Amino acid sequence: MTISPAVVIGTGLVGASVGCALTAAGHRVHLEDRSLSHARVAAGVGAGTLDPAVGTEVALVVVAVPPNALAPVIIDGLHRFPYATVTDVGSVKAGVLNALWDSDADVARYVGSHPMAGSQFSGPVTARADLFTDRTWVIAPHRKSAQAATDTVRELVRACRAQEVIMDVDVHDAAVARVSHLPHLMSVLMAGRLTEVPAEQLQLAGQGLRDVTRIAGSDPGLWQQILGANSGALLPELRAIQDQLGELIKAIEDDRAGRPEPARRNGQDGTGAGASELRPHLERGVAGTRRIPGKHGAAPVQYRRLVVEIPDTPGALSRLFAGVGQAGVNVEDIAIQHDPDRQLGYLSLAVDPDQADALSTAMTAAGWVVGEPDPSPDLPD
Amino acid sequence: MTISPAVVIGTGLVGASVGCALTAAGHRVHLEDRSLSHARVAAGVGAGTLDPAVGTEVALVVVAVPPNALAPVIIDGLHRFPYATVTDVGSVKAGVLNALWDSDADVARYVGSHPMAGSQFSGPVTARADLFTDRTWVIAPHRKSAQAATDTVRELVRACRAQEVIMDVDVHDAAVARVSHLPHLMSVLMAGRLTEVPAEQLQLAGQGLRDVTRIAGSDPGLWQQILGANSGALLPELRAIQDQLGELIKAIEDDRAGRPEPARRNGQDGTGAGASELRPHLERGVAGTRRIPGKHGAAPVQYRRLVVEIPDTPGALSRLFAGVGQAGVNVEDIAIQHDPDRQLGYLSLAVDPDQADALSTAMTAAGWVVGEPDPSPDLPD
Repeated sequence: MTISPAVVIGTGLVGASVGCALTAAGHRVHLEDRSLSHARVAAGVGAGTLDPAVGTEVALVVVAVPPNALAPVIIDGLHRFPYATVTDVGSVKAGVLNALWDSDADVARYVGSHPMAGSQFSGPVTARADLFTDRTWVIAPHRKSAQAATDTVRELVRACRAQEVIMDVDVHDAAVARVSHLPHLMSVLMAGRLTEVPAEQLQLAGQGLRDVTRIAGSDPGLWQQILGANSGALLPELRAIQDQLGELIKAIEDDRAGRPEPARRNGQDGTGAGASELRPHLERGVAGTRRIPGKHGAAPVQYRRLVVEIPDTPGALSRLFAGVGQAGVNVEDIAIQHDPDRQLGYLSLAVDPDQADALSTAMTAAGWVVGEPDPSPDLPD
Repeated sequence: MTISPAVVIGTGLVGASVGCALTAAGHRVHLEDRSLSHARVAAGVGAGTLDPAVGTEVALVVVAVPPNALAPVIIDGLHRFPYATVTDVGSVKAGVLNALWDSDADVARYVGSHPMAGSQFSGPVTARADLFTDRTWVIAPHRKSAQAATDTVRELVRACRAQEVIMDVDVHDAAVARVSHLPHLMSVLMAGRLTEVPAEQLQLAGQGLRDVTRIAGSDPGLWQQILGANSGALLPELRAIQDQLGELIKAIEDDRAGRPEPARRNGQDGTGAGASELRPHLERGVAGTRRIPGKHGAAPVQYRRLVVEIPDTPGALSRLFAGVGQAGVNVEDIAIQHDPDRQLGYLSLAVDPDQADALSTAMTAAGWVVGEPDPSPDLPD
């Protein structure tokens, strides 16, 4: 299969990076963007040329525009490049396909795809040829896709050095509904509730609230497009949450109704509680967190967390990491939690359990205050 | 008011730190714990003495035991120390009080409280006299509290150098229901849903899912106690979420019903969409995130985030922070996001907007790949 010359329409981070990868692999790439400055920057970082392509020569068209623009741009691409395979890099696949069915375009030459990359930066200025290296790139053929078109998209994925995953359109859309779109709306629901909480009470907020609500701060315009495009897969997920929420409320009500007076129920041992209908919900949540794959696509790993107190001054983190570096320990994950009142913070370091003691000893010897975090770090007391 | 001698019952981090603070302020502190080893460690770090107190001499009793054990221990304390003011440091106040009303204890000498501190470490080994310095410490008198008892607890808060906040019992419990307990259950609901997602689909998980579900991994036993103790304040919050979720589902259904074909609705500009019933929900979420106070109790601040690529090797963070330190820039917040497939990660640095350009220039000059994050960092493509 040839994928050259290719046209990339939309030169944001993902589109420009596709251009860079194809160019680096020796292919000719023509860039299109309704923003000429974006296209110029993309050309400047090596994503391709601004020279217009000859329509009948183009072998591959990659559409990398915002969600709501995908369908018309794909249809236009199928018309303008009559022998090309056309793919896109959108995060939702079914809606675009439905729009294509209703069009007069040659849908057999369209195969959707979705590279799992590019979330950290935006815009062509940070485009890079290796953005997709070893990343998952979902290819989602439809029932009328020509085999040659699918093979062309596979060639694109290979040229970008990504890992091809063939996935049914509906399975893909269900997956992103579950791992991306539903979490977004849960965050939105929680954050939305805060609009009705008196400011005085919000002073009691801790890190847990900040984590749960972080993604709710994302651009509503973009998310309206994404969620709207995947509403078919998202609605069953929301209804499942609705059912679970109903059961959760009932469990808490039942626990409450059957709750003996604390004074009579337990001794001082605090183990208390006995049968609880709430407990299985909490345990189900724990089980769910353990199913999320770890970094680098590996199986989930339990790291050990050390917590080090850091003064909130320039250079403190530098000195701290110098110490960590000298200990020769690889930090797997890191988080800063600020003390809401005092001018200091805590650095939580996730390290290999086998290295934790050595690190703790070294840091303590260097004068840092080191501890292990509370198992429920969001408990306010 | 005298608060000496005092008895601290329960020598975990919070109890032992109260002991340290009172001891440092010159007060005599007797320690009690059903775990003698905990009490010994607490005494070893300067929290007080293991010698038993003379019951009739004690002026103040601080109860710092797990939630389900609070009421019986408080009642026992009121009996054993007949002239003492008794307080506790639990995160929920109304349930304990109800248990006390039903008891024969002298409730006038009890005033509940809740220091907002101590979440990072657990156990007496990391106890410290300044754990509460400048932290909020809620005091929640009830309608029968003796003024002298409230004053004694205020003296305790002053001795611990914390900031006293007098709050109605019900207001306090509503506040923690909203900023701590509800977020916990939203995280649990989302994480629980993952138990039904095929492993293949979970490979598409990104940082947003990890953030939203992190606290769901906390100890179910402890959270069962906390949530059970605050079910009265929590249930209205859950029902409010239930209502919002119902409206959200309806909004998405309505958008879907009224949704014209994408091909006909928009041009290539991608602004698309027009009227959307979903949009106000997303904007409400954004508004909610902006109401959360910033660190150090200050008003929310918008920092600028720089994203730097880091190799996933020992010493990389050390070199990176050395560079940040040399730039003289104070890092306000930090997060590492691992590339799920490649051996590298991204470090997100939140800095004062006025310092961001200088830092970016310095880091780029030092050879780091620096960018600004996507406004929707959790969008998988």
